[in-house]
Amino acid sequence: MKKALAFDIGGTKIYSTIIDEAGNIISEIDKFATPKTLDEIKQLLKTQIEKHETEVDIIAIATAGAVNNENNRVLGSTGNLVEGYYTIDFQALSNKKVFLENDANAAAWAEYKIGASKGSNVSVMLTLGTGVGGGIIINNQILKGKSGAAGEMHFKMYPDKRRKCTCGSWDCFEAYASGTALKWDAEEMLNNPDVTTYDVMEGVKNSNPQMIAIFDRWQNDLTMGIIGLANIFDPDCVILSGSMAQFVDTKKVEENVNKEIVTTPISVKKGIAGNYSGMIGVALLAIERSF
Amino acid sequence: MKKALAFDIGGTKIYSTIIDEAGNIISEIDKFATPKTLDEIKQLLKTQIEKHETEVDIIAIATAGAVNNENNRVLGSTGNLVEGYYTIDFQALSNKKVFLENDANAAAWAEYKIGASKGSNVSVMLTLGTGVGGGIIINNQILKGKSGAAGEMHFKMYPDKRRKCTCGSWDCFEAYASGTALKWDAEEMLNNPDVTTYDVMEGVKNSNPQMIAIFDRWQNDLTMGIIGLANIFDPDCVILSGSMAQFVDTKKVEENVNKEIVTTPISVKKGIAGNYSGMIGVALLAIERSF
Repeated sequence: MKKALAFDIGGTKIYSTIIDEAGNIISEIDKFATPKTLDEIKQLLKTQIEKHETEVDIIAIATAGAVNNENNRVLGSTGNLVEGYYTIDFQALSNKKVFLENDANAAAWAEYKIGASKGSNVSVMLTLGTGVGGGIIINNQILKGKSGAAGEMHFKMYPDKRRKCTCGSWDCFEAYASGTALKWDAEEMLNNPDVTTYDVMEGVKNSNPQMIAIFDRWQNDLTMGIIGLANIFDPDCVILSGSMAQFVDTKKVEENVNKEIVTTPISVKKGIAGNYSGMIGVALLAIERSF
Repeated sequence: MKKALAFDIGGTKIYSTIIDEAGNIISEIDKFATPKTLDEIKQLLKTQIEKHETEVDIIAIATAGAVNNENNRVLGSTGNLVEGYYTIDFQALSNKKVFLENDANAAAWAEYKIGASKGSNVSVMLTLGTGVGGGIIINNQILKGKSGAAGEMHFKMYPDKRRKCTCGSWDCFEAYASGTALKWDAEEMLNNPDVTTYDVMEGVKNSNPQMIAIFDRWQNDLTMGIIGLANIFDPDCVILSGSMAQFVDTKKVEENVNKEIVTTPISVKKGIAGNYSGMIGVALLAIERSF
């Protein structure tokens, strides 16, 4: 059975473990704070790879940022990572083949192979966390686009410049359906800059009507975005993952989406591949595509 | 050289001609008003097919409405066509194979094979007419989704119910980027229910500042929609076709899109496959997929 040394490289943490071709995690999970310099990141990866590469067949890296169609480079700058991150020659870090994929795409692949969208010909996964990631799988292929950057959930929720998005543009879906967006909704609706996402979810738990109204607005915006994606892709399912997914009433969202779309009904489900779905997905993909 | 008897079935007109496998129109183009009853539509098609089917290898039909993944049925009801249109068994009308595709998808295929998006791995075509049609081609495949209905340009431009869309939902891209939408923009901005799309375009031609402001709003909404599609699909190009495309400043739209997207730059171009691109596209597709 083939094995991959898998990484998940994010803005704050780097995870690493060994995963087999069935998607089982077969070693301890190592966790590191993401270093603040390029050299330290490279050194961390190199050390970890040297320690384990003889035990595995391939190195599989899920990373923040868009990954090229050759799965060996990060494209351009990624907000949360150190400047110049895209210059890293990942293949130079190992004697084994190194295979990269965007973290949201990798997580979508895990759901598709062993999780909530297993068996779907067309699935859309949304990772609702600090931002919103997207991974779209059509006929056993991740939608990558001409350069590898497709699946970015930066479509407009308003055309007239209301809320600045982290991408530099305005009013993207990410700015209305992320965890950060829920805080912004609360700030606007309560006129209080100090309210947190946590405050809202605590309020909802305690049946606070104001907090429920804020959450409903957020969930409605999420629903509106999913309606568009359902009409564009006509998917079997939309999978919600990431830290905010737990709060979503998927049954209600599914009902409201299916009331409004012109395509055939979809299902809306929560991801089940877990916190390490990025590593699992990239390991499965690297092994499937390389052997 | 293979030949197809091609049809384009729309809400008001039905066109028919013979097209060869290189995309050449090789007979007169017959035009008919679309009959108002199901039986008359079937009879019209049957008569035309009986007249020409011995001259061709296949019957290729571009039609309003979504077409299933088997390319032999229309899915569900289509606003502009007679009730029960989707019940037509098109294959029963001919002894030759009958191949169907949605008209916007067919037009996109024509642009991809012999027109403005030739050679593109990933292209998005928008037909800007009374409504907005969409045809997305990825790696030599039309994006069809689970049922065949993908590529519907009904994603939200606002999440809060401002303008009813013909699809029954609210604030879809179609309701802001179609020819009808330009009339609605003018009605709103001039507070005059009688103003027409033609009035606006005449005003723009005569440098009327009010009419220019209305058109700019429309073109801005179109740009906002294209930004979302560019971030989702990372396409090589977005092709604009249909009666409204002639008015679009594609250079300006392209510049503004490329300023805001997180994916790599795209080109925005007008379609060049002409008024019969639906028939050309479905003929090319039918021949390519069937022989």
